[in-house]
Amino acid sequence: MTGAATNMRMKLPITCLILQIILIILFGTIVQYDDETDAKEWHEHLHNGSKDADNDFYYRYPSFQDVHVMIFIGFGFLMTFLQRYGFSSVGFNFLIAAFALQWATLMQGFFHGLHGGKIHIGVESMINADFCTGSVLISFGAVLGKTSPVQLLIMALFEVTLFAINEFILLTLLWAKDAGGSMTIHTFGAYFGLMVTRVLYRPNLEKSKHRNCSVYHSDLFAMIGTIYLWMFWPSFNSAITAHGDDQHRTAMNTYYSLAACTMSSYAFSSLTAHDGKLDMVHIQNAALAGGVAAGTAGEMMLTPFGSMIVGFLAGIISVLGYKYLSPILEEKLKIQDTCGVHNLHGMPGVLGAIVGAVTASLATPDVYGKGMEDVFPQIANGEFTASAQGARQAISLAVTLGMALLGGLLVGFILKLPMFGAPSDAICYEDSIYWEGGHFEAFKNIF
Amino acid sequence: MTGAATNMRMKLPITCLILQIILIILFGTIVQYDDETDAKEWHEHLHNGSKDADNDFYYRYPSFQDVHVMIFIGFGFLMTFLQRYGFSSVGFNFLIAAFALQWATLMQGFFHGLHGGKIHIGVESMINADFCTGSVLISFGAVLGKTSPVQLLIMALFEVTLFAINEFILLTLLWAKDAGGSMTIHTFGAYFGLMVTRVLYRPNLEKSKHRNCSVYHSDLFAMIGTIYLWMFWPSFNSAITAHGDDQHRTAMNTYYSLAACTMSSYAFSSLTAHDGKLDMVHIQNAALAGGVAAGTAGEMMLTPFGSMIVGFLAGIISVLGYKYLSPILEEKLKIQDTCGVHNLHGMPGVLGAIVGAVTASLATPDVYGKGMEDVFPQIANGEFTASAQGARQAISLAVTLGMALLGGLLVGFILKLPMFGAPSDAICYEDSIYWEGGHFEAFKNIF
Amino acid sequence: MTGAATNMRMKLPITCLILQIILIILFGTIVQYDDETDAKEWHEHLHNGSKDADNDFYYRYPSFQDVHVMIFIGFGFLMTFLQRYGFSSVGFNFLIAAFALQWATLMQGFFHGLHGGKIHIGVESMINADFCTGSVLISFGAVLGKTSPVQLLIMALFEVTLFAINEFILLTLLWAKDAGGSMTIHTFGAYFGLMVTRVLYRPNLEKSKHRNCSVYHSDLFAMIGTIYLWMFWPSFNSAITAHGDDQHRTAMNTYYSLAACTMSSYAFSSLTAHDGKLDMVHIQNAALAGGVAAGTAGEMMLTPFGSMIVGFLAGIISVLGYKYLSPILEEKLKIQDTCGVHNLHGMPGVLGAIVGAVTASLATPDVYGKGMEDVFPQIANGEFTASAQGARQAISLAVTLGMALLGGLLVGFILKLPMFGAPSDAICYEDSIYWEGGHFEAFKNIF
Repeated sequence: MTGAATNMRMKLPITCLILQIILIILFGTIVQYDDETDAKEWHEHLHNGSKDADNDFYYRYPSFQDVHVMIFIGFGFLMTFLQRYGFSSVGFNFLIAAFALQWATLMQGFFHGLHGGKIHIGVESMINADFCTGSVLISFGAVLGKTSPVQLLIMALFEVTLFAINEFILLTLLWAKDAGGSMTIHTFGAYFGLMVTRVLYRPNLEKSKHRNCSVYHSDLFAMIGTIYLWMFWPSFNSAITAHGDDQHRTAMNTYYSLAACTMSSYAFSSLTAHDGKLDMVHIQNAALAGGVAAGTAGEMMLTPFGSMIVGFLAGIISVLGYKYLSPILEEKLKIQDTCGVHNLHGMPGVLGAIVGAVTASLATPDVYGKGMEDVFPQIANGEFTASAQGARQAISLAVTLGMALLGGLLVGFILKLPMFGAPSDAICYEDSIYWEGGHFEAFKNIF
Repeated sequence: MTGAATNMRMKLPITCLILQIILIILFGTIVQYDDETDAKEWHEHLHNGSKDADNDFYYRYPSFQDVHVMIFIGFGFLMTFLQRYGFSSVGFNFLIAAFALQWATLMQGFFHGLHGGKIHIGVESMINADFCTGSVLISFGAVLGKTSPVQLLIMALFEVTLFAINEFILLTLLWAKDAGGSMTIHTFGAYFGLMVTRVLYRPNLEKSKHRNCSVYHSDLFAMIGTIYLWMFWPSFNSAITAHGDDQHRTAMNTYYSLAACTMSSYAFSSLTAHDGKLDMVHIQNAALAGGVAAGTAGEMMLTPFGSMIVGFLAGIISVLGYKYLSPILEEKLKIQDTCGVHNLHGMPGVLGAIVGAVTASLATPDVYGKGMEDVFPQIANGEFTASAQGARQAISLAVTLGMALLGGLLVGFILKLPMFGAPSDAICYEDSIYWEGGHFEAFKNIF
Repeated sequence: MTGAATNMRMKLPITCLILQIILIILFGTIVQYDDETDAKEWHEHLHNGSKDADNDFYYRYPSFQDVHVMIFIGFGFLMTFLQRYGFSSVGFNFLIAAFALQWATLMQGFFHGLHGGKIHIGVESMINADFCTGSVLISFGAVLGKTSPVQLLIMALFEVTLFAINEFILLTLLWAKDAGGSMTIHTFGAYFGLMVTRVLYRPNLEKSKHRNCSVYHSDLFAMIGTIYLWMFWPSFNSAITAHGDDQHRTAMNTYYSLAACTMSSYAFSSLTAHDGKLDMVHIQNAALAGGVAAGTAGEMMLTPFGSMIVGFLAGIISVLGYKYLSPILEEKLKIQDTCGVHNLHGMPGVLGAIVGAVTASLATPDVYGKGMEDVFPQIANGEFTASAQGARQAISLAVTLGMALLGGLLVGFILKLPMFGAPSDAICYEDSIYWEGGHFEAFKNIF
């Protein structure tokens, strides 16, 4: 069942080992503890009046762990819905995330500013690295089942780099706000992945069609992923916002956006089915769109009311996308989007970016008070008007779309190189080409 | 397999959309950020000497997330033990929780006191909303497999309202203490659900009996729910207690109550079986009764010793209930309690209330010191004696039982209206009437 | 299928009840709230200038909950890989953990120092009790499938006691550092369990060989355990380190160690297979070795660079152990190690101890500054040199190995007593001898 092309005996070990050794060397050369993780430096701060409770660890580590669960359990298990690709879904998710978070530490550290030539790291950089990893995993969702682990590692290598550049443009050059990453994470990851899968278009993929679906228990495993993503999205969006009201408000806005989104997802899933039955694909995915769509404006004074409207719309858009748009994208545009990331991350990400631009442009000192300094420092110090902030948010969306599509195009062609061992059309969505185990044979008629 | 009655094409979308639109309008009208989530207000506090670290977010958000996991993973997966109802268990749990938490925010906000006509929300209201949702999910356990999602949403609508009224009577009018909700959440949810399922009694339910049981993997999925509930119950009981020793003590008391409960559950599960074999139903449920039973007294100076005795008894009562009482309730009282919520939440909830009343009546300044102000403010300021506090706790239990039974009776009759689309007796405990998927057919002989 | 020997009707209930009643009596006699959980005492502290935010609960409770998840979900589900032993894996893990954490509270409390004849407990003692429990669960992994629950409870009884003694020798007598327990938890638990399984050697175990393997979905359940262990290991290693930079740094070191370990595990899993396919056993286990190996040095100034090297090596050692060493141990030394704890906890634990000794011996004031007081108080106050600290770390490893092997030998012989009801060689790795359920028969050809 396994052809020479997919034999990973040399390709995968060499790729992993080379990448990891490079990472270790680079970490040894240019990475340092930041002031809050370094024994000497932190005790200097203590000497100068700080307290241990002021250490950023206590403000952000619980959120970090929630984000971590989203990355490894959430994304990993969400993709186990395929009947014969559960090992690869969780296992490759695990592999590329373990690589990407290290590489992201370097790329983001480089762009976020060096300290005497060194990258300083702590809990905030760990969260940011996980965020960047999330973007790669979104793209993974688009190509799920059709790419070898070597292709995925190469994709991660380039995507993390481009992510860091795009993030630098948005947050540092344009001074856009995007704490939960509607643009930087979701829009970028989705359109990047869609372009990659477009370039990797497989005209004969119907040979593997019978495996591109779920079975009963695989859908339950996927629901573990869904529910964890849903529960912890408030932590995701608030993880790197400013201390105090900002983290608190962002988490709460996201919570209400998700709740409303769940309601509209169920409604439209049932409404768009002949017999009114719910579709697991919608529940697993569309119900999460409210978290994506609150990714930019969540930290702003969106109000629970505004958050609920955003979530409500996101759920509708997402279900309609799965039902009507995905088939068109596949037939007309030749975009084979395994997980429907366009519906969960793409359109809701764009919606979130637009909501963010509008909300920013409506910011007034009357509403934000002195809190303006945390949310929109440039408006607070008179550098921009609120409209200018809104315009910068809108430009950021355009930049992100451009970067994602161009980047995906480029990387898609790189991934076509035969040496990366893509599986043939007839053995997509199939664990047994990558994983050992006699039980694949014994149970192949059952699962 | 799907009759007209269970076709949800119009009923479910309309119900979801109307409810959600009403929620959005009400949130837009009367809900506001509280002082700790509002940018302007919080920065006023900072100006007046508060620090970001004082924001309640940092005291309660980790506990909130644990509670959130209990509500969505814990309850959701605990109910997946049914062989053909996993989608509905997790999926309807998700739907009614997403609705209930929004509605609870309004109902509880209304009763907890308005601020200039507005409901103020923050992390504490989010926890309280999750708590109220938990109560609805307990009732869901009693009717699991026998109700349509529309019925469940209607049930949630009324139950949340009655929950908020009962909670108001207990906590505000009677000044009872019930941080972990032995009374407000567990006793109320259980007896409400039991009365609903009594009113919805199905004489021909044996037609679906063959599906009212588990298979190997469905029991493992259910164990995910069990273990999460067990692990995070300390966070549940301590989530809204006072800062400092109260949160700390409550978590610890609950931890020991659960440990002792697990031991007695295993002992009695084995003891009551002919062949000494353990019953998964007991392990999945009875081992949790220690958390329920520590819900009222957990914040008091119950001592680890007292907590362990409470948990030990709760486990025994719960196993014996499953083994001997549930069959009697079904045969004699016509109470078809799918998950046995009477054994997990009902009796242990009553036990918890009694333990709370006794522990309160024994409170002395010698034991509580100045901590009396946090746990029993009325005793501390001389308004009540300890005995009076105990009496109020006992009255609260009676009120809760009355509210639950009367409320359940009323709501049960409402749910009997045919327009809500209850499934017929022959298709209970069956996912395929609500969920799309060809794999239901392909695998129906297997799972 | 069930012989008299494995009938637990009397043995299991009596064991559970006697142990639990003894625990309750001992807790009632000698356990008290500590200053941070006691209402009166904590309010004295508040009176004397402390704030609620200073309560250790807020520094450690999120980490505690992560550790708790590792113990109950992580270990429990990691062991569900066996096709017919999922109930017992999760269920016995649950039982012995519930017992061990109570017993550990007493044993550790006794050795960590009494307060006026009383053991004082709070969140730190809860974490320590979970740690000790983890050690027992590691030993459980070695004997998985071959021991009755009564044997496991007896093993836990003795192992916890010996753990506490060993921990006392290391931390209090030798002043070694071992925050994440490379020695106290992993090395001790692994070699103790290996010796127990050696003593319990079953020459005819091949009669159950056909059940000593996984099926597709059991491997996915096991991945839930793996991923949770992986994600929360940073919390495990940092849970009881000093406040501030120590917790922060330890979590971060562990995070990078694990990431590098994952990369090398994948590389070597593929490299050592004829066809380059990945082995789920390696991914489920070896990818975690980086957490074990960072258990001692994680709190030191190991640097991310050092952490990555440690993790990288741990992954390699662990995969090679599974591939080449385990078969030799089984054939030559008659060590039947079901989960391969020697590869996941044994060798990586020893590696971690060595890394800790080396890192300690290299400690300089220039690197640690005033932080030396937290990490190496004896070096800071001039009591030891860094080399002496390193030597003490090395001696600690030797002591731990000795204690584990001797303890395991002793306890192994105790467990051989026939009254504890070990299953016969032909019914190992089999749930149906301990668990009720007709579905075992109905589905025995499938799973």
